[in-house]
Amino acid sequence: MQLLFLGTGAGMPSKGRNTTATVLKLLEERGTYWLFDCGEATQHQMLHTTLKPRKLEKIFITHLHGDHIYGLPGLLGSRSFLGGDASLTIYGPKGIKAWIELTLLTSSTYLQYKLNIIEIEDGIIFEDAQFVVEAKSIEHVIPCFGFKITQKPLPPQLIIEKTDALKVPRGPLLKQLKEGHDVELPDGRIVLSKDVTGDPKEGFQLAILGDTKYCENSISLSQGADIVLHEATFDKETAELAGLYGHSTILDAANVCKEANALNLIVNHISARFLPYHLKEMLNQVAHFDFPIHIAEDFAEYDWSNGRLNKITDSER
Amino acid sequence: MQLLFLGTGAGMPSKGRNTTATVLKLLEERGTYWLFDCGEATQHQMLHTTLKPRKLEKIFITHLHGDHIYGLPGLLGSRSFLGGDASLTIYGPKGIKAWIELTLLTSSTYLQYKLNIIEIEDGIIFEDAQFVVEAKSIEHVIPCFGFKITQKPLPPQLIIEKTDALKVPRGPLLKQLKEGHDVELPDGRIVLSKDVTGDPKEGFQLAILGDTKYCENSISLSQGADIVLHEATFDKETAELAGLYGHSTILDAANVCKEANALNLIVNHISARFLPYHLKEMLNQVAHFDFPIHIAEDFAEYDWSNGRLNKITDSER
Ligand SMILES: [Zn+2]
Ligand SMILES: [Zn+2]
Repeated sequence: MQLLFLGTGAGMPSKGRNTTATVLKLLEERGTYWLFDCGEATQHQMLHTTLKPRKLEKIFITHLHGDHIYGLPGLLGSRSFLGGDASLTIYGPKGIKAWIELTLLTSSTYLQYKLNIIEIEDGIIFEDAQFVVEAKSIEHVIPCFGFKITQKPLPPQLIIEKTDALKVPRGPLLKQLKEGHDVELPDGRIVLSKDVTGDPKEGFQLAILGDTKYCENSISLSQGADIVLHEATFDKETAELAGLYGHSTILDAANVCKEANALNLIVNHISARFLPYHLKEMLNQVAHFDFPIHIAEDFAEYDWSNGRLNKITDSER
Repeated sequence: MQLLFLGTGAGMPSKGRNTTATVLKLLEERGTYWLFDCGEATQHQMLHTTLKPRKLEKIFITHLHGDHIYGLPGLLGSRSFLGGDASLTIYGPKGIKAWIELTLLTSSTYLQYKLNIIEIEDGIIFEDAQFVVEAKSIEHVIPCFGFKITQKPLPPQLIIEKTDALKVPRGPLLKQLKEGHDVELPDGRIVLSKDVTGDPKEGFQLAILGDTKYCENSISLSQGADIVLHEATFDKETAELAGLYGHSTILDAANVCKEANALNLIVNHISARFLPYHLKEMLNQVAHFDFPIHIAEDFAEYDWSNGRLNKITDSER
């Protein structure tokens, strides 16, 4: 799993940061990407990465402010034009369906794939064998959601040395053992799955929160998460503005992470007033927390593996 | 007057060309800009120029395909956020008003200026003391307009040597003479405006055409124009595609310009299949025409003065 940031700014695009869009890359897990929010020119940002729009499987929209949705129509159309034919599902607040439908109709955009648009409320909004996504309302000036993405425990690995020792023939029996089923060998012996597989591996837990002030539901979604992605539009000096506009400071974000006993914090949705040389001072304001805190940059990519979060690279730009 | 190209591509953004947006800079004429079409990320392109969104006075939309309108909501919102308070008028095909209104409502965007949206039909769509704008339907796969922008003759210049020779006192009388009124001097003499002013100067005529195949109304709008801006999505080798999708080749564009006896041709809406090194070959295909032909590039700017069209610069990028 990787997190690739396509837009980390607040409100309006600036030269340094586009409006919000975050890609959860699940190529190893399911061969697809999930996108969280889609500010204007998200498809333009993708042109500077190796991302392929056709691999987009789901788009989650935190709230309907323009800096989180104006890139949707163009991306939906281009995904079709570029040969995307797998169905795509959008999850978002009430109102998103009518807007997308009128936009596609007005612009005579006919998609070559099935588009599902689900207007969500608090609760489990998606679940399959691999993942659960839960939405909860957080506190902004308009209805806004945060999401908890939970990867279910991974199937235990088959230990091939053990099946070889038991002379289990290579082939379909191994698949059954791997999937947890006990099998009978051609010679009549019974092999138990638990005897030839390792321990099940925990999946990851990720909280992706939309625009919000410090609030209880952010903590609840972030409880025990491996990674919390929280907005930090403002800092200590501009905390009053945060209160006024339903946003957070970087300190608010860190406090959410701390109260939730989460392991890593990444902040995004950074006001354009903060220039690159201000970021060190922002990080200083949260230097006393004992978990890693990153300020996301456009095109920064973070990898999660073996229980560790690593900034791996900035994509081509 | 200058023409500044913010997007010269077709259909989808590419690394080299954004979707369509053309700025008619009328700073000397009226202190404002007019924008023709507004593909996604037009506001992003403006960040790389000296353009100020608050100086946008009018936006003309040729047709409702996404590559011509998806940048509108973001630009409208940012213009407000950046302090734009003068009213703004959008002219476009039927359907644009309902879409803009639902988009602003859905995204809780409250503009700090008056927005007028005028759904147009063929005919004069704007006229004041300086300019007339006429719209005519051209031939695309959905309703599409071309525009003829006519600057009215400029008031004759006052020849100060002549008024001085006649001992006309400096002050309000000069203004009246300049505006074409004859005046009586304090000593009773009558001075005729025509005796102290130069010849009236012709204004410019500019045709800005939307997506279209070769058609009569394009010629009619371009009749005698100083500059024709015509799409050239395709070239000689891809002419069949042009026919299929209601577009033009560069040869079609040049033929419109020739039939209309227009003076200069600029083409835009260039398919992403054409890379920079293809452009010379495209120009070769129209080398036999005896008027200047330019292929527009993103951020290219053309100046019109003293009856001549000059490419002045590429804006910062
Ligand atoms: Zn926002
Ligand atoms: Zn087009």
